[in-house]
Amino acid sequence: MGPRLRLRIAYLGTHLAGWQKQENARTVQGELEKALARLYRQPVHTVGAGRTDAGVHADGQEAHFDAPLAIPPAGVLQAINGLLPWDIRVLRVTPVALTFHARRSAVGKRYRYRLAWGQVLPPWEGLRRLWLVRPPNLELLAKALRLLPGEHDFLSFSLSGHAGHGKRGTVRTLFVAAVTCGRGKADIIFEGDGFLRGMVRRLVGAALEVAQGRHELSWLEGLLGGTAGVPPAPTAPPHGLTLERVFYRRPRRWDKPPH
Amino acid sequence: MGPRLRLRIAYLGTHLAGWQKQENARTVQGELEKALARLYRQPVHTVGAGRTDAGVHADGQEAHFDAPLAIPPAGVLQAINGLLPWDIRVLRVTPVALTFHARRSAVGKRYRYRLAWGQVLPPWEGLRRLWLVRPPNLELLAKALRLLPGEHDFLSFSLSGHAGHGKRGTVRTLFVAAVTCGRGKADIIFEGDGFLRGMVRRLVGAALEVAQGRHELSWLEGLLGGTAGVPPAPTAPPHGLTLERVFYRRPRRWDKPPH
Repeated sequence: MGPRLRLRIAYLGTHLAGWQKQENARTVQGELEKALARLYRQPVHTVGAGRTDAGVHADGQEAHFDAPLAIPPAGVLQAINGLLPWDIRVLRVTPVALTFHARRSAVGKRYRYRLAWGQVLPPWEGLRRLWLVRPPNLELLAKALRLLPGEHDFLSFSLSGHAGHGKRGTVRTLFVAAVTCGRGKADIIFEGDGFLRGMVRRLVGAALEVAQGRHELSWLEGLLGGTAGVPPAPTAPPHGLTLERVFYRRPRRWDKPPH
Repeated sequence: MGPRLRLRIAYLGTHLAGWQKQENARTVQGELEKALARLYRQPVHTVGAGRTDAGVHADGQEAHFDAPLAIPPAGVLQAINGLLPWDIRVLRVTPVALTFHARRSAVGKRYRYRLAWGQVLPPWEGLRRLWLVRPPNLELLAKALRLLPGEHDFLSFSLSGHAGHGKRGTVRTLFVAAVTCGRGKADIIFEGDGFLRGMVRRLVGAALEVAQGRHELSWLEGLLGGTAGVPPAPTAPPHGLTLERVFYRRPRRWDKPPH
């Protein structure tokens, strides 16, 4: 029996049906477990920090698994990237204590949504950035985002509605909702303790409604109340979204191998 | 009859069989002419500044065509990008005088070859950058590149051998051969008055032979003599290469529409 290994994973979501393993669909977890099974010559089960939807990218998704054999992390890193398809890369392999759990130990996540307008985007930029026909009003965009940090009922921003939220319900805390601008480009960054399904894309969709003058700021404020019955915010397409980082508490202790 | 239009084109070469139109293959010129034919409702012939091989990318390929109808350039830009596949984008449409010829008026080109080693590359970087298993010696790489500028017979760096070079033969002038380095990354930049088929990839291949210690600098110097019979330089793979810019003389005059 080998150690528990933590993986940092990057993927280009364009041709992937999201994180979670599915029959008859190409997913990150599916491809990862296929590669690990070939490496260890037996089935390996992985746990991801969170699911990403079809078409969403990741710079720093995290996962863990219990290695059936003690292969050194550097060897696992090299071998696994040789077995994975080109659009999924394992960036780092770290031995962790058995108390580390990629999903349960996570205390927050950072997402980035990339926007562009005006100039034509070269294809490699268009893969991970949404092109807007109408330029957004950046002042209004910043104002809309300033409404969002704090603890709110994000029901109106969930793609699953009331379903499947368990005990935690639809209340989440956003620590950061900010925009950084370049020439004809803007990145929207969200950090929070957790995100409902589709939440970032709906927050971006709603902020763009305000920034493109289709709705007032008060409409967005109303959505944050979580009052059911209000038509939900529109959903920005997945290709602009990247899961950038998963945050964990006390990383120093976890980075040490067990014994 | 409309004006002559100059196009600046970016493409991700990954799924393209190069610039030049071919039957039964997806090429940049083929896709471009298909889109133009739909826009103008009649066949349109385009002339490119130069051919790029299958898998090679472009940031700033140039082409021209004689528009059958006088559609304003801004309209052509918007319409053509709506008709092109996602991996080809027209970045700019400029009316030019009939004396402008995308290939014959070109006085030089700039290519960039991207390298990486050490850290694992995220997939979107791996699309346009060659990952090296063995890190190159950057001092030797710089020394190798310093041998290259000037007028030389580049026969040993041509993928076509002696064939198809016409009157011009295999002598070309390199203005720039330089390397810029980052952490675990390096870009090799070439500027010259013209490039033989595969020449940049073979120059990179040869420079890497020296930088990875498989050959001496004197070997590279010998290749520059163009002596037939010497085994040619190895060819770096196409996905690291990008055609960055085509240079023209007197751009100000050409940028004015005729009359």
